[in-house]
Amino acid sequence: MSVPAHGTGSRTPGIATRGETVPTVPPAEKAARETAVDVSALLERGRTLATPVLREAVDRLAPPMDTVASYHFGWIDAEGNPADGDGGKAVRPALALLSAQAAGQAPEVGVPGAVAVELVHNFSLLHDDLMDGDEQRRHRDTVWKVHGPAQAILVGDALFALANEVLLELGTVEAGRATRRLTRSSRALIDGQAQDISYEHRDRVSVEECLEMEGNKTGALLACASSIGAVLGGADDATADTLEKYGYHLGLAFQAVDDLLGIWGDPEATGKQTWSDLRQRKKSLPVVAALAAGGPASERLGRLLAEDAKSSDFENFSEEEFAARAALIEEAGGREWTAEEARRQHTIAVEALASVRMPQEVRAQFTALADFVVVRKR
Amino acid sequence: MSVPAHGTGSRTPGIATRGETVPTVPPAEKAARETAVDVSALLERGRTLATPVLREAVDRLAPPMDTVASYHFGWIDAEGNPADGDGGKAVRPALALLSAQAAGQAPEVGVPGAVAVELVHNFSLLHDDLMDGDEQRRHRDTVWKVHGPAQAILVGDALFALANEVLLELGTVEAGRATRRLTRSSRALIDGQAQDISYEHRDRVSVEECLEMEGNKTGALLACASSIGAVLGGADDATADTLEKYGYHLGLAFQAVDDLLGIWGDPEATGKQTWSDLRQRKKSLPVVAALAAGGPASERLGRLLAEDAKSSDFENFSEEEFAARAALIEEAGGREWTAEEARRQHTIAVEALASVRMPQEVRAQFTALADFVVVRKR
Repeated sequence: MSVPAHGTGSRTPGIATRGETVPTVPPAEKAARETAVDVSALLERGRTLATPVLREAVDRLAPPMDTVASYHFGWIDAEGNPADGDGGKAVRPALALLSAQAAGQAPEVGVPGAVAVELVHNFSLLHDDLMDGDEQRRHRDTVWKVHGPAQAILVGDALFALANEVLLELGTVEAGRATRRLTRSSRALIDGQAQDISYEHRDRVSVEECLEMEGNKTGALLACASSIGAVLGGADDATADTLEKYGYHLGLAFQAVDDLLGIWGDPEATGKQTWSDLRQRKKSLPVVAALAAGGPASERLGRLLAEDAKSSDFENFSEEEFAARAALIEEAGGREWTAEEARRQHTIAVEALASVRMPQEVRAQFTALADFVVVRKR
Repeated sequence: MSVPAHGTGSRTPGIATRGETVPTVPPAEKAARETAVDVSALLERGRTLATPVLREAVDRLAPPMDTVASYHFGWIDAEGNPADGDGGKAVRPALALLSAQAAGQAPEVGVPGAVAVELVHNFSLLHDDLMDGDEQRRHRDTVWKVHGPAQAILVGDALFALANEVLLELGTVEAGRATRRLTRSSRALIDGQAQDISYEHRDRVSVEECLEMEGNKTGALLACASSIGAVLGGADDATADTLEKYGYHLGLAFQAVDDLLGIWGDPEATGKQTWSDLRQRKKSLPVVAALAAGGPASERLGRLLAEDAKSSDFENFSEEEFAARAALIEEAGGREWTAEEARRQHTIAVEALASVRMPQEVRAQFTALADFVVVRKR
């Protein structure tokens, strides 16, 4: 077993402590400034255009599912009072609107696509949190914790069905094509969750298996988000496929950064516990890359994790014990490999854009979003 | 609160014991013989044409979901050995093929619709069994019992996605229309399950609420099954809507019979425990009708069920205690009201057929299937 070679990049790990920025990612804020793209404004536009349509869709749900879904989206608190919760980064809606513009249409053409993708994304969050036993999301108790497992299943199902409804009620040929692509992405999403669960029960997972799982869990839906507006705007299949390629690799970059944040992220920013992924024994990229790297640190890590898997005291591990494991992962090169993987996937994503004709401004915005994804801290 | 009046039918309950045929339902076997329709052959044709396509679809699932789904469908046992399990009555596939013929097409045109409807039906069974804590289905342990809750959620999700995939990959305008109708039915199905769950926590449910819930849980998908083949075969919306009406009321008749079998059914035939719905405290039609009827038996039943709801010993109730409750439901008129409701819905269903032009043979087959639904014993 060996770590797949990246094109470039040293394996020598840098010294970095928890909460520090992911090291040596592209200077995206600088790039964004050069091309005059305001990423926050782009994300905000996605939120502003998609949220009212999303809320209208959720309002169609029969009680109490409408309430449960509104809690999940952060629109109300557990007592049912209006809230201004954290609805997530909203990268997907921003991509969907941009992709409509890539096909020469107004961003509004992408709105039903943005809403459908958000519905599928949140369907998967509701079910995954229950399956994984995760108690917190976006700084709040998860739906199954507050409203019980049955509501988490039911409302997840309802959001999944709504996603197709929102597209198909457009009644156009393009909507049928968009639904077909969304369905393919949803299936990949489910495959990815199945792989994720099965890997938990295994001692070893290869880097290739981890990348395939992450491509399914994160890449496929970002691929759909990046093409769905274009499909609704009448783009041909070749254009849609290329935009999907951009989104797929953007998703892999996104997930690599997520895996870094899952170990070394600042809890204040991520809303997760310290060493979150290590507490959950997640076989994320830094871990599998470190285990595959070979050498003394890698071997020590392997022995330690094998012991942990049998330990009955794992729940009570101290901060220092998790910190020691994180340090070993870093020493074995898992942190730097993952950061380099994020950069590599970012490059493939941005290069894919080159073969699609689109307004220069839209291209700059796609690029700035890709840059944002790899420098974010939450 | 009062029981809605049927057009006809005495409330005086007959004397009937568990396992006996549902009283005074239409003489369907006789009717079927008169029109020379072999209902078993019709169901068998649905199974024969749909199952290979269904298996091909399930084979697309990533491991271990393909195995879990194959277990659910009864194609393999819990150890993974080939099995010839009970795949259910297969009323829905039979309806989907017939509906293609109603539009003047070959039955084969309805196959993707039959498969999609079966996938949605089984998605809902997987999730509902988990939410309801049901441990047995079709004489075997349910998926969550054998493979765990996460697999039940995941494979349910996957079947739901596959349903849309199977239709949309046809790539036709008709497939888009069929998917839209299937999505609407799926949403109703989910609404119905939400109502079912919320009713469990309430002391009283009205007959109207129960009928609405059953229309969502059972009527909506039978409506879709009865029209989807016609939609795929190019039928207009008015024809599809009328076929949906047939299926919807057939579904209500089906569910009324199910509710009778859930209390008075023969365990050997149904594969469920004796007094199954009473053990689960289900507020099914016979119960809500008996409670709404008024009079001494109705009031005695109301007091008894209110006590049961608080009883800590309910799990250990004897056969006799359940039999006493069933007798009270019958004495209050709940059994006869439900049997009459089945007949009434059957009549509406068959009458709806009259306004659709279709080959006389196809009409006779639709009618025979409706007759079958109300005389079945499992």
